Amino acid sequence: MTRLTTEASGVFVIAVTPFHPDGRIDMESCDRMVDFYLDAGATGLTVLGMMGEAPKLTVEESRDVVARILDRVKGRVPVVVGVSAPGFAQIDVMTKMVMDMGAAGVMVAPPGNLRTDDQIVNYYNQVAELIGDVPFVLQDFPLATGVQIAPKVIAKIVNDLPTCVCLKHEDWPGLEKITYLRRDGVLNKRISILCGNGGVFLPEEMARGADGAMTGFAYPEMMASVVEYYNKGEIERGQDIFNAYLPLARFEQQPGMGLAIRKYTLAKRGIIAHDTLRRPGAPLSALCRDEVDALILRQEKRLMELN
Amino acid sequence: MTRLTTEASGVFVIAVTPFHPDGRIDMESCDRMVDFYLDAGATGLTVLGMMGEAPKLTVEESRDVVARILDRVKGRVPVVVGVSAPGFAQIDVMTKMVMDMGAAGVMVAPPGNLRTDDQIVNYYNQVAELIGDVPFVLQDFPLATGVQIAPKVIAKIVNDLPTCVCLKHEDWPGLEKITYLRRDGVLNKRISILCGNGGVFLPEEMARGADGAMTGFAYPEMMASVVEYYNKGEIERGQDIFNAYLPLARFEQQPGMGLAIRKYTLAKRGIIAHDTLRRPGAPLSALCRDEVDALILRQEKRLMELN
Amino acid sequence: MTRLTTEASGVFVIAVTPFHPDGRIDMESCDRMVDFYLDAGATGLTVLGMMGEAPKLTVEESRDVVARILDRVKGRVPVVVGVSAPGFAQIDVMTKMVMDMGAAGVMVAPPGNLRTDDQIVNYYNQVAELIGDVPFVLQDFPLATGVQIAPKVIAKIVNDLPTCVCLKHEDWPGLEKITYLRRDGVLNKRISILCGNGGVFLPEEMARGADGAMTGFAYPEMMASVVEYYNKGEIERGQDIFNAYLPLARFEQQPGMGLAIRKYTLAKRGIIAHDTLRRPGAPLSALCRDEVDALILRQEKRLMELN
Amino acid sequence: MTRLTTEASGVFVIAVTPFHPDGRIDMESCDRMVDFYLDAGATGLTVLGMMGEAPKLTVEESRDVVARILDRVKGRVPVVVGVSAPGFAQIDVMTKMVMDMGAAGVMVAPPGNLRTDDQIVNYYNQVAELIGDVPFVLQDFPLATGVQIAPKVIAKIVNDLPTCVCLKHEDWPGLEKITYLRRDGVLNKRISILCGNGGVFLPEEMARGADGAMTGFAYPEMMASVVEYYNKGEIERGQDIFNAYLPLARFEQQPGMGLAIRKYTLAKRGIIAHDTLRRPGAPLSALCRDEVDALILRQEKRLMELN
Repeated sequence: MTRLTTEASGVFVIAVTPFHPDGRIDMESCDRMVDFYLDAGATGLTVLGMMGEAPKLTVEESRDVVARILDRVKGRVPVVVGVSAPGFAQIDVMTKMVMDMGAAGVMVAPPGNLRTDDQIVNYYNQVAELIGDVPFVLQDFPLATGVQIAPKVIAKIVNDLPTCVCLKHEDWPGLEKITYLRRDGVLNKRISILCGNGGVFLPEEMARGADGAMTGFAYPEMMASVVEYYNKGEIERGQDIFNAYLPLARFEQQPGMGLAIRKYTLAKRGIIAHDTLRRPGAPLSALCRDEVDALILRQEKRLMELN
Repeated sequence: MTRLTTEASGVFVIAVTPFHPDGRIDMESCDRMVDFYLDAGATGLTVLGMMGEAPKLTVEESRDVVARILDRVKGRVPVVVGVSAPGFAQIDVMTKMVMDMGAAGVMVAPPGNLRTDDQIVNYYNQVAELIGDVPFVLQDFPLATGVQIAPKVIAKIVNDLPTCVCLKHEDWPGLEKITYLRRDGVLNKRISILCGNGGVFLPEEMARGADGAMTGFAYPEMMASVVEYYNKGEIERGQDIFNAYLPLARFEQQPGMGLAIRKYTLAKRGIIAHDTLRRPGAPLSALCRDEVDALILRQEKRLMELN
Repeated sequence: MTRLTTEASGVFVIAVTPFHPDGRIDMESCDRMVDFYLDAGATGLTVLGMMGEAPKLTVEESRDVVARILDRVKGRVPVVVGVSAPGFAQIDVMTKMVMDMGAAGVMVAPPGNLRTDDQIVNYYNQVAELIGDVPFVLQDFPLATGVQIAPKVIAKIVNDLPTCVCLKHEDWPGLEKITYLRRDGVLNKRISILCGNGGVFLPEEMARGADGAMTGFAYPEMMASVVEYYNKGEIERGQDIFNAYLPLARFEQQPGMGLAIRKYTLAKRGIIAHDTLRRPGAPLSALCRDEVDALILRQEKRLMELN
Repeated sequence: MTRLTTEASGVFVIAVTPFHPDGRIDMESCDRMVDFYLDAGATGLTVLGMMGEAPKLTVEESRDVVARILDRVKGRVPVVVGVSAPGFAQIDVMTKMVMDMGAAGVMVAPPGNLRTDDQIVNYYNQVAELIGDVPFVLQDFPLATGVQIAPKVIAKIVNDLPTCVCLKHEDWPGLEKITYLRRDGVLNKRISILCGNGGVFLPEEMARGADGAMTGFAYPEMMASVVEYYNKGEIERGQDIFNAYLPLARFEQQPGMGLAIRKYTLAKRGIIAHDTLRRPGAPLSALCRDEVDALILRQEKRLMELN
């Protein structure tokens, strides 16, 4: 099975977890979603991330979702699985389980009680020792975790741990962090930097040296296009595409309710059958659904003007 | 002197505090800035807010800045002054000082240690008792203060305290909060709701019932236009204008470095003489300045297409 | 099987989870520990609490520990199991599992992201709906969870939810909370209040109306004595006993390293075989072990003086 | 005027700020308090600390309090003044003011938004540059500030900044930090370490190498005795004294309400005229006053037994 490497690039879509209205996992929608993401240009998938409602799943459900998605992907792209947990025992169990099933690597966010530089470094050292040779993605998302990781701390983790192959970059602001990590002499290996935050800074991130995105905007084709045009040097074209989607991307980026917006949009596009969130997630208000509808209409109009 | 009322509407620009490169306050730039903001359509000004670097000023400097701005405004629009402080003594002193000078009201954010509903309600009760008949703006900005104020807590504060005349709304997400506060029977008086967050949700906020904006985007003319077109019912036009500015507004909205971007832009536009921030604020990197320059260029191009 | 009721009183010892030096669970020590706790006067046990290193156990290990302890207890006292988790799925699975095995009830702490009163009330409403007729303990421990629960929020939860039968009280300061909850008319049923914080406020808590302790000090006999003497009205005697143990209780109360001190003491007393903590827990320094040894010596001397 | 040096030792009492019942500063009580602290064995005073209700004073009031206290002290012991503030302008103004008046140095706690090691180091570098040759005390109090300072970060600040002469040590747990800082080769100069937390770990802190206490327990004579007996090597005697006061010290150590307990006790002892706190501080409940009274009675009885 292919493992995640420092060469990871393009768009790793953060997959949602589709549910039936009664809360059961919707496996048929999983299949459609995988097909859609790959058709939209995904070069990888990340499942059971924060936006995959991972903590709302039992271990058995997590296993079933990962199995279904791996089965549908059939090795066409690498699949990363989020294994962040309050304790090492759960990280260990989940990692072994998903790697045995064919995952390409795991993603680990820092627990919220870490504060000093050494505490963060020690945590990732212990994680790396725990999971052995499994490649992992360091998730740097202070808005959600409450943990601020200094640029040089990321560098130390990457330099000390050969299995840290990718940074899921979603510090905000975070552009200078990319520039720092791409500076000569900072890292002893070039790692993959894939950016989050729903893609709302993707053009600037690409220009600073990112390899792509690892996030879940409901129009992954936008991210695939931006990455593609930046890689081809067609910057203006990339920015036109980006700007057309930005009003909706901004709206989906609202903390907490963003996932409801994303699922509503994916359901509206026919990709997942229902926009159900498991509790404590709440559905969108009627007003909010109208706002999303209006944003999508204007987005389509703008995209037509661009073509 | 006119006092702030529940009728406040339009765009209250959060003023920056201009400095010379050596850190002294730049009074000439204050004058130019006032003229610019009013020309751009400001219906009010808010000084010494978080983005006015208030904690970096001594009491004497605060007094001088407020005096200069009031002197330049000459009563054309109401001027609100931020007086948030760790203790009541400072709030009291600042409030008396600026009201004597002719301010229209004060703005108060909750201190970061408040947690329960009652703690927040009690805090504003004590503030209101302290400042007597001075009208105040409740600043609801959880991302910066760490304090989450439930919709019904805002309602209680507004209903209990006649001098709470305006909500500076910058919860994120916050649209449902506006809708709740505009619902029949929730408030015993209709208050002014002016929105923050750099204006990046202004169209939706206007549609939900906001009266305008109280924030500091370096192109206040965008906010004035959006408010105007929404008030006239020309929604599409309002959204076109908004979308043209959104890529830059999004960029200026980055926490921490946003003020440096704003000052750089205002200096580039010739409004303030220098983009100096007082420490611990840091200047923009060359790369970041280039990014802002490019965003402004594209913005101008897009605005020309719209006309 | 007996279920936890609002009549719970005395000392529910928070059990540690004993490990072998290689990290495996030490089942023989579990047995000895149960015997010791019951001999020391425990009227109940609470397992898999924060001090039981619960997040460091897999679901299977949690099951095995609970099974072993229930098997040893043989129904002599009620056993409460901590089921706090980031998501409802885990809470649900754990609750069903331990109740089927014979637990008397579960304990639930609020997740760290809750802020407003309504968020906290809603959370417990959802938990109660999820677990059905299972009695639960509300754990109020702001220092560890970061969630401040106002006294009236506790009252609302207790009054709305018949299955909320006990408060694990460890707010700090928290004495006024007990007095409030014991005031006529505040609650529609008298619940059990068992106090935490290592017992360092137990005399005042008993005097305010607590029913006992639910915490894990390595000398549970102190807590049993204090509860007994307060119940008998022998206040002075209760305080003498308390004061004799206070220097060590204060030392064990240090956040983070407190569990290492507790396990070291229990091992020194011959109750558990090893003082091993699972990672990221660290062992005590030699200096710290010496400090504990000295405190125990002085404690024994003082207790002899009292007899 | 004598300046604070790395030789500072003994007990620097954190002075309360006495108020009249109507909230005015009670200058006569200031005098009595100074006399009492010095009679009780204080080797220094620290005014306008967190427990001095500093944020509740205007700049003018702060000046008057410091002036009165310095006037009464008449150079007999060094007086440190807390100047922590949200911005550098206030720190600068306060520092100049109090040093001109004869203070021996200032104390600075980190603002709550600092997270990474470098942010903390940079902050103190900027403070030290700002205040020039004024000696300062680094206050390390994570429970109150929310900022965790790693041992090596303290070492870096001390080693880089000659004017950092003293650590107000109140991390919890914090004993290993003292041991680390006293290890050969860690610091390039031996600094003064004075401990906080109301003195509840003073025996162990002295044994680890602290030079004394800088905190405000209402019985400073306890701290003076513990320091004295530890310095003389009469450890057992020091611990006897400590244990006699511990039940009350523990009670006064409760966050938030601790200051009310302290002022109540000082008023009861006849040292300050009133136990008034400025808002938002609340007075003690009748029950709590009774608890303090009972603790004091038992403390006196125990002290008599020891003599």
